[in-house]
Amino acid sequence: MNEDELVEAIAALTGAESRVLIGIGDDAAVWQPSRSQRSVISTDALIEGVHFSRAWMSPDDIGWRAMAANLSDLAAMAARPRLGTVALGIPPEWTPQALLECYAGMARCAKSYGLQIAGGDLVRAPVLTIAITVIGEVRASNLKTRSGARPGDVIASTGALGASRAGLDVAKGAVQIDAALAARALEAHRLPQPRLAQGRWLGASSRVHAMMDCSDGLSTDLTRMAQASGVGASIERVPIADAASAAAAALGIDPMAYALAGGEDFELLLAIESRAFMHLARRFQARFGQALERIGTVRADERIVMVNQGREEPIARTGWDHFSQ
Amino acid sequence: MNEDELVEAIAALTGAESRVLIGIGDDAAVWQPSRSQRSVISTDALIEGVHFSRAWMSPDDIGWRAMAANLSDLAAMAARPRLGTVALGIPPEWTPQALLECYAGMARCAKSYGLQIAGGDLVRAPVLTIAITVIGEVRASNLKTRSGARPGDVIASTGALGASRAGLDVAKGAVQIDAALAARALEAHRLPQPRLAQGRWLGASSRVHAMMDCSDGLSTDLTRMAQASGVGASIERVPIADAASAAAAALGIDPMAYALAGGEDFELLLAIESRAFMHLARRFQARFGQALERIGTVRADERIVMVNQGREEPIARTGWDHFSQ
Repeated sequence: MNEDELVEAIAALTGAESRVLIGIGDDAAVWQPSRSQRSVISTDALIEGVHFSRAWMSPDDIGWRAMAANLSDLAAMAARPRLGTVALGIPPEWTPQALLECYAGMARCAKSYGLQIAGGDLVRAPVLTIAITVIGEVRASNLKTRSGARPGDVIASTGALGASRAGLDVAKGAVQIDAALAARALEAHRLPQPRLAQGRWLGASSRVHAMMDCSDGLSTDLTRMAQASGVGASIERVPIADAASAAAAALGIDPMAYALAGGEDFELLLAIESRAFMHLARRFQARFGQALERIGTVRADERIVMVNQGREEPIARTGWDHFSQ
Repeated sequence: MNEDELVEAIAALTGAESRVLIGIGDDAAVWQPSRSQRSVISTDALIEGVHFSRAWMSPDDIGWRAMAANLSDLAAMAARPRLGTVALGIPPEWTPQALLECYAGMARCAKSYGLQIAGGDLVRAPVLTIAITVIGEVRASNLKTRSGARPGDVIASTGALGASRAGLDVAKGAVQIDAALAARALEAHRLPQPRLAQGRWLGASSRVHAMMDCSDGLSTDLTRMAQASGVGASIERVPIADAASAAAAALGIDPMAYALAGGEDFELLLAIESRAFMHLARRFQARFGQALERIGTVRADERIVMVNQGREEPIARTGWDHFSQ
């Protein structure tokens, strides 16, 4: 299979869509941006052996998760996905079949959330390398950043944390938990659902002051939001996924570790005007059938603390940092 | 240096620009597309050991060339560069200093051509991995693809070919040529100039029927243009860069090899209405001080041939194919 043949097989997987005027096969892809909307762009790279391993995931799951991670950044900006590009670095031991399976996972995830894969690049590399760029659109008034948190705001997330990391431990055989919980943890790890509808819904509320995705672990991401906003945070309660609690219990460790440092849950982390929180949470529950989880409170000083039985303890930033590890 | 510190150092290199509303540091970058223009996106990945080697290039040159290769795709669509993202996979042996030098080369090239680096990703990888996505804008009426070539059109390029590949051989010490030519060849290899102004100028002419960049070697790229357009091509004359001729003479090989299979010259390859060619070439020469090089003629049948003293010889597709090699 030469390069042009592989490009053809991939183009067949992504399908044609009228919204992209010129797609895979030319020097570049062309589209008409929506008038009156801002455009949003995000890029993530995933490297075999660093971010994923074929030992724990199928090629299809690897593709899905890579695309989901990128779409989660659009969710955090309250944007609607539009089109994207995929640069693949391909090592000799990946067969064209495995590669097309991986691409199929990406394409399926993209399609589920309305994103058209419009182009990309294929090159040789020592390990599988996936660099995805996604573009979305959002009304200027709905756009949320991580820098708008204000003292007194409620800190919340769109769901419980830690399931993805628990799923990785289950996949590795590092822990054994109840079969139903194990299945949910594996699904959270392999087929994460970026919170795009939730992000757009939350973006439409002026009471949501800051929003970001919680992909590097709560302690790291909350620190980033606080720094960008020039504030601090008190964590009063960490919503821990059942599967993470079960895995922690089986291992005899603190379940907080999964939620604070786990990462890749792709829930949205929010700062919401305090007096609007209860009403917004009720409407969120009615709309999405899931809780808007209250985590803590934004504070004026720049400290990040855990409130434990009335005592404040500083928390270490234990999340995923690609360079300090 | 942890991830957030590296992001800060990189953000300082790219500078702030008002055209990008939210840049490096949030989940995604945000911009306002121009009304009445189409948007164009292209992605290229470069892998250490496959596309470049630190043995022959400085980190700064590697960065420049990676960005230039991406901008060349925008040139081929007659687009004006707007913003881009850079995903870097970083191996342990690259120091932060070398990395920032590489980034500086990218940023300098981007700035030279009006592109703002608006975001990206930093991850660990076994070898340096650079995936760049660039976005440009073009009036719908000026957009050129590779599929518009018509029988009888003149095939032309914006310059002579082969200098970049000759420069690589000079850098490797594989050939010795005249010092002035060697310097030009090295510059062509290390600091290639994407033909953005030329692309926009040519895009404004309705007599230009097809345009693409000649980055994989003339034989491969001309075949792609012909296939996309459903036509063939007769190559009557290959414009060979002086440095490539000198290198070929020194090695005792056919200089055509450099031009047909060399690749990475980043000249634009064109199909131009026959009766308009002479006039367009004169205006091009006056505007850019360089020749629009006539290469051959588009033919109705789907053969790609070299015309040699009146005889037609089929040419092999000898360019760069990332998967057949």
